[in-house]
Amino acid sequence: MEAALAEAARAPAHGDVPVGAVLVGPDGQLAAADHNRREELQDPTAHAEMLVLSAAARRAGMWRLEGHTLVVTLESCAMCAGAAVAARLERIVYGAADLKAGAAWSLYNIPQDRRLNHRMELVAGVLERECASVLADFFGRLRSRSPDGAGGVDERPVLDQAGPG
Amino acid sequence: MEAALAEAARAPAHGDVPVGAVLVGPDGQLAAADHNRREELQDPTAHAEMLVLSAAARRAGMWRLEGHTLVVTLESCAMCAGAAVAARLERIVYGAADLKAGAAWSLYNIPQDRRLNHRMELVAGVLERECASVLADFFGRLRSRSPDGAGGVDERPVLDQAGPG
Repeated sequence: MEAALAEAARAPAHGDVPVGAVLVGPDGQLAAADHNRREELQDPTAHAEMLVLSAAARRAGMWRLEGHTLVVTLESCAMCAGAAVAARLERIVYGAADLKAGAAWSLYNIPQDRRLNHRMELVAGVLERECASVLADFFGRLRSRSPDGAGGVDERPVLDQAGPG
Repeated sequence: MEAALAEAARAPAHGDVPVGAVLVGPDGQLAAADHNRREELQDPTAHAEMLVLSAAARRAGMWRLEGHTLVVTLESCAMCAGAAVAARLERIVYGAADLKAGAAWSLYNIPQDRRLNHRMELVAGVLERECASVLADFFGRLRSRSPDGAGGVDERPVLDQAGPG
């Protein structure tokens, strides 16, 4: 999670909400690391999780990432949780819960839906305080810069202590 | 939907399940067209919908695809339905329902979840028979080639007449 936090810290330099992710292979080696680049690339699909899954699979020449663990600072949204299932991951480990859009416990539990063709382990709340702080600091700075105090980003995650633990 | 079907027809040439998608802009012009390339690119995120959303947004230099309509031959999975919300689409139009993994009515209705920060119109069952036939033919050919009759693809959508219609 420290590596994912280090990735998250790189996002604000290009105006992106600080969410970082790393993918760890079955051998424990780092398969990919990246952070949210939606604003930088102007691509709605460029969340941290999507970038690491796509990069690792293309590099390995294998879309099935069985045995891999995705480590991400914020609970994944429906797109990213769905991608984790599509990639056949073994595990998602996340830091802060996202009550507003989280799809790995909060609103949905897509990675563990028995109706889908793959399920995985979920571990939540790892370095939760640190992961949440990175986001709170980012949105706090945005608000302090904004004349109306509302900030310029419309997707502030609702952070919470809840989660599958 | 004819354009999406034409895209779907290109997928089997590289071993991919035939699903095609087009994105139509607010002006009615084609913004992007593509088909499933998971096998070709060995990328679990390379579903038809993801490719058109990413391509159109990057080309326009704008991740918000407000006013855009996604037309796809098969009901979107959680990843793609989540991406449609992330991209702020106005509408998804799909052909065949996917009872096994569909997230735009069948298992979830992510594009119309009031808890999320964006919702859109859903139109299902457009050229449903044609869209389902393309898939049935593909899986039929796979089965007839396979010695055990089981086929080589593990993700046959469960096609059905149901949907939000």
